Amino acid sequence: MGRDLMTENSWRAVRAQVCATAPLIHNITNHVVMNVTANALLAFGASPAMVHASEEVAAFVQLSRALVINIGTLDAGFVTGMELAAAAADRHGVPWVLDPVGVGATAYRAEICQGLLLSKPAVIRANAGEILALAGHTGASRGVDSLAGSDEALAAAKALSRRTGAVVALTGATDYAVLDDAATAVTGGHPLSQRMTGSGCVTTALVGACLAVADPLEAAVAALGAMKAAAETAATRASGPGSFAAALIDALAE
Amino acid sequence: MGRDLMTENSWRAVRAQVCATAPLIHNITNHVVMNVTANALLAFGASPAMVHASEEVAAFVQLSRALVINIGTLDAGFVTGMELAAAAADRHGVPWVLDPVGVGATAYRAEICQGLLLSKPAVIRANAGEILALAGHTGASRGVDSLAGSDEALAAAKALSRRTGAVVALTGATDYAVLDDAATAVTGGHPLSQRMTGSGCVTTALVGACLAVADPLEAAVAALGAMKAAAETAATRASGPGSFAAALIDALAE
Amino acid sequence: MGRDLMTENSWRAVRAQVCATAPLIHNITNHVVMNVTANALLAFGASPAMVHASEEVAAFVQLSRALVINIGTLDAGFVTGMELAAAAADRHGVPWVLDPVGVGATAYRAEICQGLLLSKPAVIRANAGEILALAGHTGASRGVDSLAGSDEALAAAKALSRRTGAVVALTGATDYAVLDDAATAVTGGHPLSQRMTGSGCVTTALVGACLAVADPLEAAVAALGAMKAAAETAATRASGPGSFAAALIDALAE
Repeated sequence: MGRDLMTENSWRAVRAQVCATAPLIHNITNHVVMNVTANALLAFGASPAMVHASEEVAAFVQLSRALVINIGTLDAGFVTGMELAAAAADRHGVPWVLDPVGVGATAYRAEICQGLLLSKPAVIRANAGEILALAGHTGASRGVDSLAGSDEALAAAKALSRRTGAVVALTGATDYAVLDDAATAVTGGHPLSQRMTGSGCVTTALVGACLAVADPLEAAVAALGAMKAAAETAATRASGPGSFAAALIDALAE
Repeated sequence: MGRDLMTENSWRAVRAQVCATAPLIHNITNHVVMNVTANALLAFGASPAMVHASEEVAAFVQLSRALVINIGTLDAGFVTGMELAAAAADRHGVPWVLDPVGVGATAYRAEICQGLLLSKPAVIRANAGEILALAGHTGASRGVDSLAGSDEALAAAKALSRRTGAVVALTGATDYAVLDDAATAVTGGHPLSQRMTGSGCVTTALVGACLAVADPLEAAVAALGAMKAAAETAATRASGPGSFAAALIDALAE
Repeated sequence: MGRDLMTENSWRAVRAQVCATAPLIHNITNHVVMNVTANALLAFGASPAMVHASEEVAAFVQLSRALVINIGTLDAGFVTGMELAAAAADRHGVPWVLDPVGVGATAYRAEICQGLLLSKPAVIRANAGEILALAGHTGASRGVDSLAGSDEALAAAKALSRRTGAVVALTGATDYAVLDDAATAVTGGHPLSQRMTGSGCVTTALVGACLAVADPLEAAVAALGAMKAAAETAATRASGPGSFAAALIDALAE
């Protein structure tokens, strides 16, 4: 594992596997990004489904090649669905990725995330404020936005990876895919991603697609690289954050 | 009823009626497509509202000219709203359309759909995998996507129409509007529709708009024709699935 | 207070304050517009979060600079979150704006709104039909759309402001910011706003952003002015309502 995975060819190879198999990706995600993450997954070559009912999540996850759990707009009903789905994924060997949106904002979010971690996500995708919050540091977030840079959270990401066994995909100006004490930097991207709601959530969804065809570290690096590249392409075609959002989906389909 | 209904002029006539009356269309639909279906209905000339609370659906459907029920992201709360709304629609003569998203994926979805069919939808809009699942065949879907072509489900669509009395709007590369043993083919469209989440759900919503001003068979054929035409127009202006989604709404407004 | 507030420079001044402070805006809004309002708030310089769970809304609103409550797709779970959040906002001096979507359509909506008014919103943003419904007049709406012009609701808006102490931001072809018996007209905008779902909801969200940095009357006038200006800019770049929606977000970021 090293920088060679970040080249154009290596995320392209993982993405080619996604396109070749159109894996079903089970998403329990937030209301804000359901549409854009479904479109991103379709553009990337996967087959997304959004399913959260406690009556069916355990059955649905067994049909799926990977599971995405994003707590952005959680409530008691969604949390039950998330817990059942994560437990079933763990039990049946379906790899899953956790996006702990805004985990530092309330005690409720912290408690839900610590519970979900017991079902052993393969990847945790988060910004610096969220990683610091999961590690017990406070004050690094404003709502769902990080006030810290990704490099400031690198040590916390390594500790989180060691504690959970998960790959930590830490996003910011520079992204890092962290496993134990090793971190692979992924550079590039464009500041317009920060002006579009859900760009982090889209990255998480792409991790889910890549988890269906690659190991957790490869999947994280490929998703981070694909998203950085798509943001660069989209920015050349955009007049602002609204046209950027559409151009990003176009770029992910290329 | 025949091919003449598929001409440019005939769906245009139904659509002109929609624009002239701006019918209120009551939608209980999934979280992924609420925005795009509301925008599609507005572009098409209807007045959409998304209302799912059990406390008000029966009252709201009586104000409406048609009802759209789409089970994409169902849960117990939404299902209660759907059942109350469908029953009220049936009781008060408000025509309604059912979109049984992913019905083949879980026993829960199958059970909910069989219950909803008792309230006699005027139209069922679905892909081949969903039609086959409603007819008791298994394995024709991957999550919410069909693995079968629409022609493979034509016999099942006819059987479903006979059993329920509904027009079946079966979508795929070629669409079919099926009533008893008669099927009207609607051709055209563009493959980019398959890369945009909710293109089938948008078609279902347009069926709802047309049901407000036309009989079920005319409504199905008009909605299928309008959507195929809009997809063709949008594809000429799109650089990928993201710009296609915006261009599709533009085209539906023309 | 007068027309001078409506000049380009004055809403620009409020908006500059938003950009300088990136205030956290807590939204409990409807499923249809969660994505577009989050993107509008980001484009406008604020930091949006969508949080509705009863377990955390009271804590979250205390972290926030303003609260937006929009009843578009309400149900019992969301209503509990709204009531707790509004009460906490009132108790802790966090200004909040109410969007009573479709309040005239059902008794349930009317009852919920009258309850929320007890928590003293700083601003009520609504169309003419909704203002008339809050004032006890019936028949001025079709679902969520107004059948009355904004000037027809001006007297009702003044009465509502006197009764509640709130500024009433009444939108239509001409917008009005109403406090007691004084009304400031805000002109401009573009008819394409009426073809895009959630343009009123976006205006409400912008009121929330402005409430974080200005008094309620200034906030209402600034949000109305910013939205009218953005609609005009977007219309020059749009080919229809789909491209208008993306162009509106671009324009709000300028």
